[in-house]
Amino acid sequence: MNNIINLAVVGLGQIGSYLLNEINTKKKDIELKTGKKINVVAISAKNINKKRKFKINKKIFYKNPLKIFKIKKIDILFEAIGASDGISKKVVETALKNKIHVITPNKALISKHGDNLAKLAESNNVNLEFEASVAGGIPILRTIKEGLVTNKISKVYGILNGTSNYILSEMRDSKDNFSKVLKKAQKLGYAEPGNPKFDLNGLDAFAKVRILSALAFNTKISKHKCLVEGIEKIELKDIEIANQLNLRIKLLGISEIINNQLFETVHPCLVSKNSYIGNVSGVMNAVILEGKPVGKSILQGEGAGPGPTSSSLLSDLFSILRGDIKKPFGIPSNKRKSIKYYNANNYVNSLYLRFEVNDRSGVLSKITNRLALYKISVKRLIQTPDKKNNKATIIIITHKTDEINSKKCLSVFKKDKDILKYPTLIRIYN
Amino acid sequence: MNNIINLAVVGLGQIGSYLLNEINTKKKDIELKTGKKINVVAISAKNINKKRKFKINKKIFYKNPLKIFKIKKIDILFEAIGASDGISKKVVETALKNKIHVITPNKALISKHGDNLAKLAESNNVNLEFEASVAGGIPILRTIKEGLVTNKISKVYGILNGTSNYILSEMRDSKDNFSKVLKKAQKLGYAEPGNPKFDLNGLDAFAKVRILSALAFNTKISKHKCLVEGIEKIELKDIEIANQLNLRIKLLGISEIINNQLFETVHPCLVSKNSYIGNVSGVMNAVILEGKPVGKSILQGEGAGPGPTSSSLLSDLFSILRGDIKKPFGIPSNKRKSIKYYNANNYVNSLYLRFEVNDRSGVLSKITNRLALYKISVKRLIQTPDKKNNKATIIIITHKTDEINSKKCLSVFKKDKDILKYPTLIRIYN
Repeated sequence: MNNIINLAVVGLGQIGSYLLNEINTKKKDIELKTGKKINVVAISAKNINKKRKFKINKKIFYKNPLKIFKIKKIDILFEAIGASDGISKKVVETALKNKIHVITPNKALISKHGDNLAKLAESNNVNLEFEASVAGGIPILRTIKEGLVTNKISKVYGILNGTSNYILSEMRDSKDNFSKVLKKAQKLGYAEPGNPKFDLNGLDAFAKVRILSALAFNTKISKHKCLVEGIEKIELKDIEIANQLNLRIKLLGISEIINNQLFETVHPCLVSKNSYIGNVSGVMNAVILEGKPVGKSILQGEGAGPGPTSSSLLSDLFSILRGDIKKPFGIPSNKRKSIKYYNANNYVNSLYLRFEVNDRSGVLSKITNRLALYKISVKRLIQTPDKKNNKATIIIITHKTDEINSKKCLSVFKKDKDILKYPTLIRIYN
Repeated sequence: MNNIINLAVVGLGQIGSYLLNEINTKKKDIELKTGKKINVVAISAKNINKKRKFKINKKIFYKNPLKIFKIKKIDILFEAIGASDGISKKVVETALKNKIHVITPNKALISKHGDNLAKLAESNNVNLEFEASVAGGIPILRTIKEGLVTNKISKVYGILNGTSNYILSEMRDSKDNFSKVLKKAQKLGYAEPGNPKFDLNGLDAFAKVRILSALAFNTKISKHKCLVEGIEKIELKDIEIANQLNLRIKLLGISEIINNQLFETVHPCLVSKNSYIGNVSGVMNAVILEGKPVGKSILQGEGAGPGPTSSSLLSDLFSILRGDIKKPFGIPSNKRKSIKYYNANNYVNSLYLRFEVNDRSGVLSKITNRLALYKISVKRLIQTPDKKNNKATIIIITHKTDEINSKKCLSVFKKDKDILKYPTLIRIYN
């Protein structure tokens, strides 16, 4: 690698713009620490005229990012467009084929095409770095690949989506409903203004789970359809009841090896108010690793926003500038194993069930009889009548049962006219 | 670097023995991940006949570690003797001068001689790695040097001594006194059986603070005498009173930049029961970093014991095997700044004061008058009489005041016959 390094930044949204500014202000620091002079020689965005905090240098601007490869000599490219396919994928592939190192925060791309892109990087002897794709400013991928490299990891889990965690925390504190808090999150820049769907339906966290699994267990990225639920169905009522029960609702992403099979999931969980994870609030992310010989490690930090993301993007830049050619997933692609998948039907949890019912005799016994029929035993039951409307809320905390059993048991309540909506189910994590 | 790497392990106590076993069982994994074959070609310990869990291979054993350099070709040496001077220092210096990479968990050595050893490593173009010297299995040094490399860090603090944290947690839970819990800790292997002094008097945590400061602020290791207090004076009574006040006692190590001056300290603190740090219990360590742009990052994990320590030692080995020649403190030694020191007399805190007094009229007003004279205002006061013995305990929580003022104020109570012992002072951290 020369001592003068040419950079390209493709995508100038919130992340790309912040990054560009950080690179320019930290040039000297980078030279001091790595001995390399860096120059941004090409930038690209869909719209040159979009309102940005800085003036675009038109001399290095390219509307079509693919043109850059023909005109400029690039050493390292930042991809900050963010889609799983289309131009994002094309830019990254073209760069790697041209022996250009790539740094990206794009979890959608990596969790979908990471295996093939890693092969491409390896065969061209360049780096593909994606520290910023999981948990913003927390250097979790580097910790797994380097800091805990010789540990046998059995489980990785945590709060992986800052938007969801902010919404759940804020509903609890402000007592505002979901849609009102979502608007607030959008206003504060914590949720996409246009389409916050992937943050809320669990898929953003799930992409991160898949990347974490591949690194923690040295496996190929799974393609298996898993249990993924977001926070869209959580109502203020559930949050308030959880509070009375000394519990909190958190969206957890979990990846673990059960009987040599991989189990990945994302879903809301009830956790103890006094637990570590119960106290990670706001846009914070937290990742917990269980490994041998290190024991339980916890990393916590801001999980979203351009600041933390840039911190990780620049740590990747440093890693490349140090001349550290690494396999994208820690070990060579051909050594990464395929793994069998654990059947999510066998996933076992205690459950929180909320039934909204007509307040008439026989309804409660209909519910408890149904649970008994499926051998789901009741640990706790709270019935709160709403006399004025002749309705009632029934909360049931069950002992442990598996997914397939609870699904079968509850299915009957879809078509019962005394059960006013399909019961809300939240798994209890312990 | 060749593909066959010769290792030496000097010191075969708890850490060295565990490490040797880990290296032998993970040879294949290391080859898979780095392409290098490793061979342990020399081991050394004071006493070959000491009871160990494994049989020593006498063919590679050297009683005098300095002999190894003359007889064997070594690429990487692990120093696990653990003293700040003497043979530990001699072995590390000799290795570096012979262009041998060194890996060590020895915080006493690094915090005292790290600056000179780093220069020696740099001039011989080899690595000096000491991830395991701070916070056991938590990859905190790598996180500062690599993961958060472009951040401007303003503060690093946390629970850095697992032994102290275990003792404080266990006193709280078991209600046993200090000396009884210390014996338990020694039995469990959490405290040195012979001389646990450095764990208890704060100096072990302080060595770690000094290493953290140097890395976080790119400064030379400080030689300044700072405010260092351990947990030896904490009584069960203080822990129980803290509990009633919804507080917990934790030994914190703190390093921060105040007005461009470095302030380093270790002392017991009262923290809220509901705070993050208040809930880090047992042998756990936790480090909190405040930086820009990343915000607040937290790393938590097991801080002591051969398992976590080996995890860090092996991460250093991997770093070297990847051919990553790095400056020991992240930047070249000649770029590391000297820094001015913040005057500890100006350190400001609310205080918890416990007075044990004769229960007679006038004593309380004597105390409150003295505090008033020094403008230390009382936030809360609890007097509990011990009628049987004609004594009383007076707890005072003060508003903020600085060190020099509180010292002057309290000095008078050394020679007052109604004040039965010099008041216990614990700073309140917020």
